[in-house]
Amino acid sequence: MLLHVVNPNTTRAMTDLVGGAARAVAGVGTRILASNPAMGPASIESHYDEALAVPGLLAEIAAGERAGAERPDGYVVACFGDPGLDAARELAAGPVVGIAEAAMHAAVMLGRSFSVVTTLSRTTGRARDLANHYGFGDRCASVLACDVPVLELDDPASGAARLVEDLARQAIDDDGADSIVLGCAGMAAFCRRLSGRLGVPVIDGVSAATLMVESLVRMRLSTSTRDEFARPLPKRYSGLLESFELDRAPLPARAT
Amino acid sequence: MLLHVVNPNTTRAMTDLVGGAARAVAGVGTRILASNPAMGPASIESHYDEALAVPGLLAEIAAGERAGAERPDGYVVACFGDPGLDAARELAAGPVVGIAEAAMHAAVMLGRSFSVVTTLSRTTGRARDLANHYGFGDRCASVLACDVPVLELDDPASGAARLVEDLARQAIDDDGADSIVLGCAGMAAFCRRLSGRLGVPVIDGVSAATLMVESLVRMRLSTSTRDEFARPLPKRYSGLLESFELDRAPLPARAT
Amino acid sequence: MLLHVVNPNTTRAMTDLVGGAARAVAGVGTRILASNPAMGPASIESHYDEALAVPGLLAEIAAGERAGAERPDGYVVACFGDPGLDAARELAAGPVVGIAEAAMHAAVMLGRSFSVVTTLSRTTGRARDLANHYGFGDRCASVLACDVPVLELDDPASGAARLVEDLARQAIDDDGADSIVLGCAGMAAFCRRLSGRLGVPVIDGVSAATLMVESLVRMRLSTSTRDEFARPLPKRYSGLLESFELDRAPLPARAT
Amino acid sequence: MLLHVVNPNTTRAMTDLVGGAARAVAGVGTRILASNPAMGPASIESHYDEALAVPGLLAEIAAGERAGAERPDGYVVACFGDPGLDAARELAAGPVVGIAEAAMHAAVMLGRSFSVVTTLSRTTGRARDLANHYGFGDRCASVLACDVPVLELDDPASGAARLVEDLARQAIDDDGADSIVLGCAGMAAFCRRLSGRLGVPVIDGVSAATLMVESLVRMRLSTSTRDEFARPLPKRYSGLLESFELDRAPLPARAT
Amino acid sequence: MLLHVVNPNTTRAMTDLVGGAARAVAGVGTRILASNPAMGPASIESHYDEALAVPGLLAEIAAGERAGAERPDGYVVACFGDPGLDAARELAAGPVVGIAEAAMHAAVMLGRSFSVVTTLSRTTGRARDLANHYGFGDRCASVLACDVPVLELDDPASGAARLVEDLARQAIDDDGADSIVLGCAGMAAFCRRLSGRLGVPVIDGVSAATLMVESLVRMRLSTSTRDEFARPLPKRYSGLLESFELDRAPLPARAT
Amino acid sequence: MLLHVVNPNTTRAMTDLVGGAARAVAGVGTRILASNPAMGPASIESHYDEALAVPGLLAEIAAGERAGAERPDGYVVACFGDPGLDAARELAAGPVVGIAEAAMHAAVMLGRSFSVVTTLSRTTGRARDLANHYGFGDRCASVLACDVPVLELDDPASGAARLVEDLARQAIDDDGADSIVLGCAGMAAFCRRLSGRLGVPVIDGVSAATLMVESLVRMRLSTSTRDEFARPLPKRYSGLLESFELDRAPLPARAT
Repeated sequence: MLLHVVNPNTTRAMTDLVGGAARAVAGVGTRILASNPAMGPASIESHYDEALAVPGLLAEIAAGERAGAERPDGYVVACFGDPGLDAARELAAGPVVGIAEAAMHAAVMLGRSFSVVTTLSRTTGRARDLANHYGFGDRCASVLACDVPVLELDDPASGAARLVEDLARQAIDDDGADSIVLGCAGMAAFCRRLSGRLGVPVIDGVSAATLMVESLVRMRLSTSTRDEFARPLPKRYSGLLESFELDRAPLPARAT
Repeated sequence: MLLHVVNPNTTRAMTDLVGGAARAVAGVGTRILASNPAMGPASIESHYDEALAVPGLLAEIAAGERAGAERPDGYVVACFGDPGLDAARELAAGPVVGIAEAAMHAAVMLGRSFSVVTTLSRTTGRARDLANHYGFGDRCASVLACDVPVLELDDPASGAARLVEDLARQAIDDDGADSIVLGCAGMAAFCRRLSGRLGVPVIDGVSAATLMVESLVRMRLSTSTRDEFARPLPKRYSGLLESFELDRAPLPARAT
Repeated sequence: MLLHVVNPNTTRAMTDLVGGAARAVAGVGTRILASNPAMGPASIESHYDEALAVPGLLAEIAAGERAGAERPDGYVVACFGDPGLDAARELAAGPVVGIAEAAMHAAVMLGRSFSVVTTLSRTTGRARDLANHYGFGDRCASVLACDVPVLELDDPASGAARLVEDLARQAIDDDGADSIVLGCAGMAAFCRRLSGRLGVPVIDGVSAATLMVESLVRMRLSTSTRDEFARPLPKRYSGLLESFELDRAPLPARAT
Repeated sequence: MLLHVVNPNTTRAMTDLVGGAARAVAGVGTRILASNPAMGPASIESHYDEALAVPGLLAEIAAGERAGAERPDGYVVACFGDPGLDAARELAAGPVVGIAEAAMHAAVMLGRSFSVVTTLSRTTGRARDLANHYGFGDRCASVLACDVPVLELDDPASGAARLVEDLARQAIDDDGADSIVLGCAGMAAFCRRLSGRLGVPVIDGVSAATLMVESLVRMRLSTSTRDEFARPLPKRYSGLLESFELDRAPLPARAT
Repeated sequence: MLLHVVNPNTTRAMTDLVGGAARAVAGVGTRILASNPAMGPASIESHYDEALAVPGLLAEIAAGERAGAERPDGYVVACFGDPGLDAARELAAGPVVGIAEAAMHAAVMLGRSFSVVTTLSRTTGRARDLANHYGFGDRCASVLACDVPVLELDDPASGAARLVEDLARQAIDDDGADSIVLGCAGMAAFCRRLSGRLGVPVIDGVSAATLMVESLVRMRLSTSTRDEFARPLPKRYSGLLESFELDRAPLPARAT
Repeated sequence: MLLHVVNPNTTRAMTDLVGGAARAVAGVGTRILASNPAMGPASIESHYDEALAVPGLLAEIAAGERAGAERPDGYVVACFGDPGLDAARELAAGPVVGIAEAAMHAAVMLGRSFSVVTTLSRTTGRARDLANHYGFGDRCASVLACDVPVLELDDPASGAARLVEDLARQAIDDDGADSIVLGCAGMAAFCRRLSGRLGVPVIDGVSAATLMVESLVRMRLSTSTRDEFARPLPKRYSGLLESFELDRAPLPARAT
């Protein structure tokens, strides 16, 4: 099976990171294609960034759908804000899973409560919105921010690894978190080490989403095409975004 | 005061319609600027359309912010899916209100429950999501779809006016709705006539949002700049969307 | 248009204050009538006070309805407990809005969360009940009490202005409030100054409710007369409250 | 022990009915005092009626508190809207329970869901509000109205008994109700007969509240005097309601 | 009337304690039978213990049902986790009430919020689950653990009485609890003394459940036999648990 | 990896069925051990059955934990009521997932809403409880029962396959379900055929849970051992259940 992991920002180093995280857990026979769009923001740290990362994400997914024999069996949206998830589900024949979604789903099967440790404090509201939207509002003990920008996470000078560990301990000790959800695709590299040090499950959404999509594909399950998530109706798209008009480059049929 | 009503799709006739609806209720001394983006979908009837309407909407708002003496005092997002609302709030110095948001807020002050009558059934899920997100999930008696596409609402051949009226009666009689919320900016023209015929309040979101923004401006209130809704951090934007890089055309300062 | 702002306690100085706050924001052509009942408590600081403020409030509204050419187009209930709101909506032909209701509705359009700063701690439960009832339970970060009685708010010796400011800062810093809702009609005078000092929106419910009613009237919207909020059925009222029997002094018809 | 059952409307026949229902279940040694106020509405069928029933209710309770050796050990508020419950709890030394409250509390211990069968459809919203407020919103399968006015329930010509039975069957068959809550104090007389015919528990709130108060008294439990439900602060009451000024006729101390 | 209070653990001293607490509040003419099963755990301090206490509990209730003239009129499940409550309701002809359930129901009629003070911190999650399940999630201010094992509560060396008092004060002062719910049947002995010292209601679930069952019996109410809580269908039970096969020792009919 | 799928009832044919369903989806290198306890009910169709299936389930898991080199890496609880899940998580070193849990988690990633089609109507309440407990109450469109007993599902004479299909269509057409969750482990055989006929995803919990556990193991994640889900404290177990005393046959250590 072929899974396409889309990093919705334009930073290639992060794409490599999430591709590696996906490959590290993928099952025998599962190939991982990791990509990022050529358009949009270098990182996603505001509602503005997130909104403007979506066109690039959708372009990646549409390209995947048009790839013929190389059409992916499923997709991962590899940004913790789960941008464009509903729209992606309208396009793709296979299942699409977001990394915040998958991480939170995993967390609630491992204990009563989880805390999210993320990058900038201004993004904590989005994490709360997602927890509520997915049904886990009561299970989310806290959302804590290390205030290191996304693109500095892998810079040792940022001290991010240590800050994330400290916040995770605080979540466990003060907020009673049973597990820790890493709130950024760029934190995937911290996961294994943190698990060992904290003594509670530490969940990387890229891994969780990759395995969730793989599982759905293995069950031959995909997004329901009934009404809401059917393919978008074709219509005129103009100006800068005219290439998004679905009639110009038709998508192959989805199975019902 | 100057209010900017942004129709996020590219259909000029709808822009004229929503501009007219806003002007019909605006107070003495309030000027209405109605516009639509040059990029994006001709109408918004899927998660895909909605996601791709957001860049155009944000471009309109950024243009407004850079208009100097003509910088609007506030904005209305005139599509019932309230696309890009959080991102728009990060950009604008003045308040920003969505038409679904404003219509639902008005409805809950006029009775216990409301029903939404909208266009395509595939959009009813989004209306439910918004009702839940705004805190009115329990107050929303039903969301009913007439299954007339947005751009045919003003075509008498579509029979939309009659279909909407029939659904509104069904909402009142079967679902116990105390009021009716019109679920599309393109239905603004139906509002007055329906009110008279149904005997319950019928709420047009364009009118409601215009007056809500006008009210907030009159109280000198705007989006909180604390943390989450502060201006986005500047960063590199690439490719098709490079014009969205905020550093290339700086926005004037927001008051705290 | 004529709006009637009812202060439900019997303290004339507070009536003058809320009348002034309403006039300061009302639109061109909107006249404000501010009144208080002759019966009931001097201030409202308990469930007991609140319950006993309602007859006076309803008497004011019934008098308004019977005022012929001077019948108000809408009403504001100017006490933060929103006493008697549902009953008032049964009586009035025009819309009726409470100041807690309007302030909270405004707050949630200006940020993710708000905190209420109010008078006595014993009233914080009522504020919580209202936030929950209006659908904003999750948005209300905290309700903090300065423990200054209502009638001492305008006494410089009470230090209320400073106490309210300190609590507002605590709400912002510790509870993450994006905005501050002033939890008493008697705090309207603090609003402008606090806004400037705190750097986040500070919302006075009297202003918000005045503009909300004005907006509803401008849209020709009023309380639904379907079933629950139709005029009360006439019946015998006895004893001290016999003057509340609606048959003795009939109310003019409501539209629809 | 002495329990005071207050019928908050002024109809003596209903007072006799609820007094009888209370006596039928009260334990050995428990005396029931049933009364109604001399002021207020003859029946309670709107928010207006309910609001104006509260002063009379509070006067009855204050009189009880001042009754010296005959001070009741606890109170029942015998109207299904539970009017004035919070205010009554501030006044009374002993526990106070409403009949909707008690009936719903009993119902959720007897099955998954209950339906309320009540009088006029305009009161169903209040029943829903109460179910939500007490925490049982999800357990309330439906609220159905027989549309017989309160004061005609005991008039055989109204056919109320049969209508209530039909609605109860509908609730069981269509809404899956495990039990039936009678939604009016005036339906207490229907309870026993209905139970036998329907095959599911039928709950009369007067009986349930009487036994709940008796139980609390037996456990020596009463309303918490911490902050919110402490005695109201004394203050000036004016005009028609000046007799409600607590200083004029002081209440005896409550135990902590 | 005969009420059967079942202590689901095997510790006789605790059975004596809960029997005493029940007898102390039971009404004239109510006999209390207190028992514990011969099988299962000596105390209940984990999900494992709780699950394995249920067979013994059900055996006690089945024995009660088969007791002929001595069949109890109702049952109390005297462990704060309310183990096996739904299953017990399927078996018993009379009502069955859990002590956490009854205590929480009582607490919400005595103030806005309550806190639970319990034994081991690992059981606090279960208390939260129960509060949510019963509809009181918002009313539960906190669940605090003294970390004294159940079977050491009555050992003066454990200092449990003092620890519970300290936690109760913390709940009142820091969490704003209006009342305290004792989170273990083994704390029944602390109730009276604590009430006097804390100045807020302190609720023992054994007392509350005993009186709740007595009240239901007095109203001739029992678990609905409609569908979900009807008697279990007879079927083969094997191995260690074959004695639980209902066909081997039939239960007498339940009414309705 | 070795996964242990426990059928908590004693019917071997069902164990074979669920084992087959698990093997059909398990990844390369994953071995499936399917077993059922020797004690307990032949099928699970009531709260009573469910409670009494738990000891056998826990015995199977404890046996697994003591299996040395053959200790399973994770467990599936293969009954749609997810019996004993919390207790199982205290025992097992590896992750434990229930089939209702896994199926519902999968369903919400495939569309807005799902319906459960199950066996007896008396079990629908439990399915609702689980949907609420897992956070998916709003996503569960309906729970429909075919009223075929569990052990007759595979008997062609029961017509179960057709009844389930009809109910699934009803859920899709009338309740707007985007997907169908099969509400019994014994329906696993219907899954593939139904999917093809209905045109929406049909989810078998055994498959979903197997892949979820496999995914968790692949991520090296297991139940948090912090506090609530740590190993139960050792204590005396008596009588029929004395073999459950953990000290008698100690479990090997869990990793932190």
